[in-house]
Amino acid sequence: MGNLSFTIVAKEGRARAGVISVPHGFIETPMFIPVGTQATVKTLTPHDLLAMGAEIILSNTYHLYLRPGEESIARLGGLHGFMQWKGPIITDSGGFQAFSLGFALEHGVGKIANIFPGEDEQTKEQRPPKSKLAVVDEEGVSFVSHIDASRHKLTPEKSITIQEKLGADIILAFDECTSPLSSYEYTKEALARTHRWAVRCINAKKTEQAFFGIVQGGAYKNLREESARFIVNLPCEGYAIGGSLGKSKKEMHQVLEWTIPLLSEEKPRHLLGIGGIDDLFECIERGIDLFDCAGPTRMARSAMLLISPAAGGSPVNKFRIRITNAQFREDTLPIDPFCMCYTCTHFSRAYLRHLFVAKELLAYRLASYHNVHFILTIVKRIRQSIIDGQFAQLKKNWLE
Amino acid sequence: MGNLSFTIVAKEGRARAGVISVPHGFIETPMFIPVGTQATVKTLTPHDLLAMGAEIILSNTYHLYLRPGEESIARLGGLHGFMQWKGPIITDSGGFQAFSLGFALEHGVGKIANIFPGEDEQTKEQRPPKSKLAVVDEEGVSFVSHIDASRHKLTPEKSITIQEKLGADIILAFDECTSPLSSYEYTKEALARTHRWAVRCINAKKTEQAFFGIVQGGAYKNLREESARFIVNLPCEGYAIGGSLGKSKKEMHQVLEWTIPLLSEEKPRHLLGIGGIDDLFECIERGIDLFDCAGPTRMARSAMLLISPAAGGSPVNKFRIRITNAQFREDTLPIDPFCMCYTCTHFSRAYLRHLFVAKELLAYRLASYHNVHFILTIVKRIRQSIIDGQFAQLKKNWLE
Repeated sequence: MGNLSFTIVAKEGRARAGVISVPHGFIETPMFIPVGTQATVKTLTPHDLLAMGAEIILSNTYHLYLRPGEESIARLGGLHGFMQWKGPIITDSGGFQAFSLGFALEHGVGKIANIFPGEDEQTKEQRPPKSKLAVVDEEGVSFVSHIDASRHKLTPEKSITIQEKLGADIILAFDECTSPLSSYEYTKEALARTHRWAVRCINAKKTEQAFFGIVQGGAYKNLREESARFIVNLPCEGYAIGGSLGKSKKEMHQVLEWTIPLLSEEKPRHLLGIGGIDDLFECIERGIDLFDCAGPTRMARSAMLLISPAAGGSPVNKFRIRITNAQFREDTLPIDPFCMCYTCTHFSRAYLRHLFVAKELLAYRLASYHNVHFILTIVKRIRQSIIDGQFAQLKKNWLE
Repeated sequence: MGNLSFTIVAKEGRARAGVISVPHGFIETPMFIPVGTQATVKTLTPHDLLAMGAEIILSNTYHLYLRPGEESIARLGGLHGFMQWKGPIITDSGGFQAFSLGFALEHGVGKIANIFPGEDEQTKEQRPPKSKLAVVDEEGVSFVSHIDASRHKLTPEKSITIQEKLGADIILAFDECTSPLSSYEYTKEALARTHRWAVRCINAKKTEQAFFGIVQGGAYKNLREESARFIVNLPCEGYAIGGSLGKSKKEMHQVLEWTIPLLSEEKPRHLLGIGGIDDLFECIERGIDLFDCAGPTRMARSAMLLISPAAGGSPVNKFRIRITNAQFREDTLPIDPFCMCYTCTHFSRAYLRHLFVAKELLAYRLASYHNVHFILTIVKRIRQSIIDGQFAQLKKNWLE
């Protein structure tokens, strides 16, 4: 079994506040996990992440397998030594990237069919259907590298071996992530395969890294329930909820409502790849403990900066401003006057706007710093509100 | 007169160690001035700059006049308030940018004809002669904006007004920077104009900002001497040595040897736009107190990282490594094992190489941090060596 313990310290409804302990440290849950795809959370140093209260980061097996290679990283001290993040790390299995290269390309969709983290109408690219670069069979996923078009195959066994070499505290099952547009029949077939792959992952695993099984099943109630019942019986230290989450946020909430009551209360639950402000409230309320999402850093690089309700943020504007708008040209306020991050305690919206307009690299860093700090902070406030029995009120203050 | 005092604390030959005092703080000389062209030293925060020992930064009148505009910056608290650098600032006059858009484009040259800070054979672009975008007349320089092709004219009076609005501690005379390929006749004519402009700058100036006159004259001995004799008689708080510095470093050294003995010993001397490792030693030896150069940050963004002699740096390799080279793929050493910067005390060459190869934004920041820290540190070591009477020995250790 893997090296992870989890203690729940408070509950309000299904929402829980807890503490995860893994070899590299503690994670107070609920917690947001910044995404460091290529062994770097874009623009931020480990020191920045620590200073803003990050307790765990996520890195990507697919990307690191292709470059610089898991053998190199192992020789360079594992992911912890390589990137010099001393705290807990979780690696994904590469399954989601196979999806990105496969159905996501073919269908022109994201995890929730038309919602791409960090995008809005202005930045959303046209996504015409494209040829798949990944093909699934019983053995695993064959794909073409996005870097040099070389051919590769990831299997459950190979994914586990790579993740063992990367050396994260928590590793994920190798799964097939179907598309929101996949048929019931295909999703059912893929789910059965994902379950067989989960068993193969567990059989392949040689280390004491904690292992999270992944619940799949698309937006189909009986498949999600079947998956939850299957995964809960595997020897896992926690659960991830992955894959396609339907065609709307409402469908995503339903997936959680079908799934979470069937999972063991004593283990942490990670909702993969989701991290909008409203999602944090809605999904924590339904029992989620961990989130990861590249949205906050991706948004930051597109000049979309998060603001709290006190600064005018609301579900209508998705809690964000576009800092390049002309209205901020001489705005002496910080991005969010109530935010205590390095960016907001030092720089005006006018200066941030100038940096973005001039395409200065400092823009991306200051914006990423703010957005990640902002998400971490709101999740910490949610955690405290659960302990204080004030979560429902806090949610109302933000979302209504 | 302007608000600046300068005290020399030690000398070794012509090399001096001193302290400049201006309203926003002290500058220990010799000092390297990081360049923050658009009110940001690329990739670095004011906090980064402070932490690495920067004491003054340089910003550009031309760029800030065009974007966001000096009136905006004045309303936003001047450059200090706008960019939140609390220490001393110097602004250039816009004259050099007029050169970049004029002769530098037409002749395909830099300040020293074929040496561009931060470039080497591999990165040097072809520079075929191009049409000038700037035209000089007695009144000033007319130019076309590189941003939106709008037409503008900078005059000595306008440059001073802009620099007053930007509010730096030290401002520079508006000069004409000729090309290393300009004829004697043209250089002489331009020099006379530059001198008339210097007087117009002084007459226009209304603030107590310190004012540095600029010695011009290309690589012509009698013109440089004439210029030094003219500028030394103007009411200036310091001198800058600008313009074309010949066709080789040897010619640049001659320009300093002709010029510096004619300048007043009691005022600081700034060599504009130069900052190679060898230049620092050679020019401090000849009596220079201040340097500014975009080379260290530009090199950093091109993966060229500075190393000391103890780490293999020498005049032959220009004290640098190209971190993207295959030899660094699994190199666990820091960039320079003797460097105490944040980058070198945390990250391996292998990790830096990975970030560059993956085009991760963190690469540019960590590399810029190292290179600027490196230059600041060697100049501080030079300063201490002058105080200790060991400068000649230190120079020998580095350059021989």
